[in-house]
Amino acid sequence: MKIGLDIGGTKTDAVAVDAAGAILGRVRLATGWGADAVVRTVLEAVRALSSDVQGVRASEPGVWGGAPEGLSAIESVGIGIPGQVEPGTARVVHAVNLGVEELDLAAAVGPELGVPVRVENDVKAAAFGAYALHGATGSMAYLNLGTGIAAGIVADGELWRGARGTAGEVGHISIDPNGPLCRCGQRGCIEALAGGGAIAERWARPGALPVRDVFDAADAGDTTARELRSGLARGVAAGVRILVLTNDVDIVVLGGGVTALGPRLMADVAAELAASAEASPFMRSLRLGERAELLPLGSPAAALGAALVGAEPPRDPSSVSRGALSRG
Amino acid sequence: MKIGLDIGGTKTDAVAVDAAGAILGRVRLATGWGADAVVRTVLEAVRALSSDVQGVRASEPGVWGGAPEGLSAIESVGIGIPGQVEPGTARVVHAVNLGVEELDLAAAVGPELGVPVRVENDVKAAAFGAYALHGATGSMAYLNLGTGIAAGIVADGELWRGARGTAGEVGHISIDPNGPLCRCGQRGCIEALAGGGAIAERWARPGALPVRDVFDAADAGDTTARELRSGLARGVAAGVRILVLTNDVDIVVLGGGVTALGPRLMADVAAELAASAEASPFMRSLRLGERAELLPLGSPAAALGAALVGAEPPRDPSSVSRGALSRG
Repeated sequence: MKIGLDIGGTKTDAVAVDAAGAILGRVRLATGWGADAVVRTVLEAVRALSSDVQGVRASEPGVWGGAPEGLSAIESVGIGIPGQVEPGTARVVHAVNLGVEELDLAAAVGPELGVPVRVENDVKAAAFGAYALHGATGSMAYLNLGTGIAAGIVADGELWRGARGTAGEVGHISIDPNGPLCRCGQRGCIEALAGGGAIAERWARPGALPVRDVFDAADAGDTTARELRSGLARGVAAGVRILVLTNDVDIVVLGGGVTALGPRLMADVAAELAASAEASPFMRSLRLGERAELLPLGSPAAALGAALVGAEPPRDPSSVSRGALSRG
Repeated sequence: MKIGLDIGGTKTDAVAVDAAGAILGRVRLATGWGADAVVRTVLEAVRALSSDVQGVRASEPGVWGGAPEGLSAIESVGIGIPGQVEPGTARVVHAVNLGVEELDLAAAVGPELGVPVRVENDVKAAAFGAYALHGATGSMAYLNLGTGIAAGIVADGELWRGARGTAGEVGHISIDPNGPLCRCGQRGCIEALAGGGAIAERWARPGALPVRDVFDAADAGDTTARELRSGLARGVAAGVRILVLTNDVDIVVLGGGVTALGPRLMADVAAELAASAEASPFMRSLRLGERAELLPLGSPAAALGAALVGAEPPRDPSSVSRGALSRG
């Protein structure tokens, strides 16, 4: 079986997948803070999953000499992580939400696990998993709406990586020269308008779910909230348009923490897309309203995608800039 | 040998290419107006080129029964055309600059030529040719700055087509909600700011080369011209950023009529890219200034790309949304 992990800022989601791509088991753990704790989280998640799926326990919990009982059936481990993964390596840099400045995850956990370990940016892994779950055959973009905003692109079963790892970085495309200042230094970036982090910062009021608070306050007529909410819809709609106009993807799947707002968010985005379709016959011809979809809440897309990435054959040197993925 | 044609609004550029991709000959003809005249232009260009390269003449000029003498060495013909080419077909629609509403070019010229004929959008063909001429190995976007603005994307030797033919349509991405109205109906599209047609329309003064006039008038201090010139640079720089941030292409090659301005245009674009790099460490890390290049004036990129497209093997049904191209 293949193991896939999605390491999030607070939780790590892990799935075990069989040869046909079916999910055999799933566990969720709290993610530790810092490189050592992230490594421990990975090892614990793999053990918990292995024990869960196979009904066996490692003979000495917490001790990882050789291949513990229960790990022998694992063929590969893939890890999705919110940071920049250096192309062709397992080196993660700037995973700021995990307190990790630099970490070679394959080197750190590979020897303990005794199987190949591959690492991928979490949004790219989620795109790959969403494509598999969707049963898509053409092309798809996955637009992740979390603290920040980024997309992953899959076409004909291949994940688009790019030579420098910036493929899908639509969050830092400016759509308004007079828009709010982005943490990247530019003005009017999609992320400055629609990123959960930027919205929370500009809302600047206490609350566990600031974007939901903004929606509620906007419904209640608050002017600042209405402006923030409208910026969110504008930013997401721009992201959808840009992904279709650059890559001609068949569908754009929206996921990430902000999509917990579900139909309320989609209604706003659909209204924005409808407004540009009304203004422009060209935009209308693209039928973007029909091409934007929500990833179901709680979807294991990211962990599944990581499992599929983990099972990739070694990359052909001629395809460094876009690894060919064979599925299943 | 393979023949490639780039059908432009005023001129048709045609090249003959050998098996190794070297250009054996090149001819340029005026393009006829309307579907019938375009078909005649294609046939005349192929005959002229064949005669030019092989030093032989068709036995009966103007009469095309069977495969005339001189055509026998032609293995394939590829045609780049400024219109929408329906994916997987040779049907061109909305080639407004040629006076063509709808035309199946392969059906119209294939029987006369007696060889396979493939048709591709001209910008996509130019992207493919620019990639080959550049000797590029990674990924490249070709951003065409003409009357309108569009891009073609090539990665690992494959042309990105997209399922609906809108891949690379960056011209209709809005980068300013308060920008000028685009002919597409939206505001602040890259094409509304940087398209030669939009600039000429807003400049609205007589002259054969309105964009050059705008540059000259801006140098002389004219306020309208300075605004138009600054919008051109903003639009082109945004196109470069968007192509890199969505597709992570290694380089963006700028071509098309507006690039006749050469270093004057590039200096403006470089200043725009430098300004965003100054404001944003993230943008600075992308080194966009080093990744934007001009296609040399008079480059046969589009005709060469058409020749390469024409020599493509028949498309595998599994790769409908992005045809695999084998070069050479």
